[in-house]
Amino acid sequence: MFTSQPIGFVSSPYKDASEVPKGLGAKHEADGVLKILPEFEAGLTDIEGFSHLVVIWEFDRSHGFDLLGRPPSDHRSHGVFATRSPRRPNPIGLSTVELRRREGIELHVRGIDMLDGTPILDIKPYLSSIPSERLRRGWLAEAEARQKG
Amino acid sequence: MFTSQPIGFVSSPYKDASEVPKGLGAKHEADGVLKILPEFEAGLTDIEGFSHLVVIWEFDRSHGFDLLGRPPSDHRSHGVFATRSPRRPNPIGLSTVELRRREGIELHVRGIDMLDGTPILDIKPYLSSIPSERLRRGWLAEAEARQKG
Repeated sequence: MFTSQPIGFVSSPYKDASEVPKGLGAKHEADGVLKILPEFEAGLTDIEGFSHLVVIWEFDRSHGFDLLGRPPSDHRSHGVFATRSPRRPNPIGLSTVELRRREGIELHVRGIDMLDGTPILDIKPYLSSIPSERLRRGWLAEAEARQKG
Repeated sequence: MFTSQPIGFVSSPYKDASEVPKGLGAKHEADGVLKILPEFEAGLTDIEGFSHLVVIWEFDRSHGFDLLGRPPSDHRSHGVFATRSPRRPNPIGLSTVELRRREGIELHVRGIDMLDGTPILDIKPYLSSIPSERLRRGWLAEAEARQKG
């Protein structure tokens, strides 16, 4: 058993899961704030130099999990570890956001897909990308192709 | 307080943290296996279609944290949230690995940087990248430039 505690909370325009853009072609361009608890402020030193951050957070309003489920982007069902479903064995969420500016313990970011009040577990700098020509995107690419076809 | 349980364990060539490549230009090309617990096997359905996976795991051999620390890639110290240090308030690790093949509950992957026996908390498909021309890499880019200079 592994226990974690929030290092801060998300301030987001989304109050309910139904408001978060989902499905094929959904864009996450909402602005929000990662409010870090004052006792962790020193941990933000030099974070301003990074354009993008990886945020690890808790799906605190998700309860239970399904090993197989139908994501909003497909009518077929897929294994939970092949989707971003909130109904996971460990309800851990992951988002890549763009850091616009820091104001003390507030990280103003773009690309929020979390709900308002979401507990933040960790933040890491986004360091490198897999070149898109090397990425295969499985059922998601197939669902996109079916939609276009 | 947020609690999680392992969904599986990493089989890695690295038995000790000193063996994991670190510092500027470190490459993570080791092969390893993500062994998922049998009760979660259905959650792997269709994962074979993805070339890359994001693995969320626990730094189970790291104890305590430092808000400021000197990473192996620099002689200057930086905030923990601007580094990948294991000594984090919540010792959660994140790795992007290449999925080579699946054999039942075993995901054979390349790009391991975890220790042997590391508990896995979650696996997600890697879906998209930030184009490298849009990435700024802060103190890390500066440390690289100093090394070259």
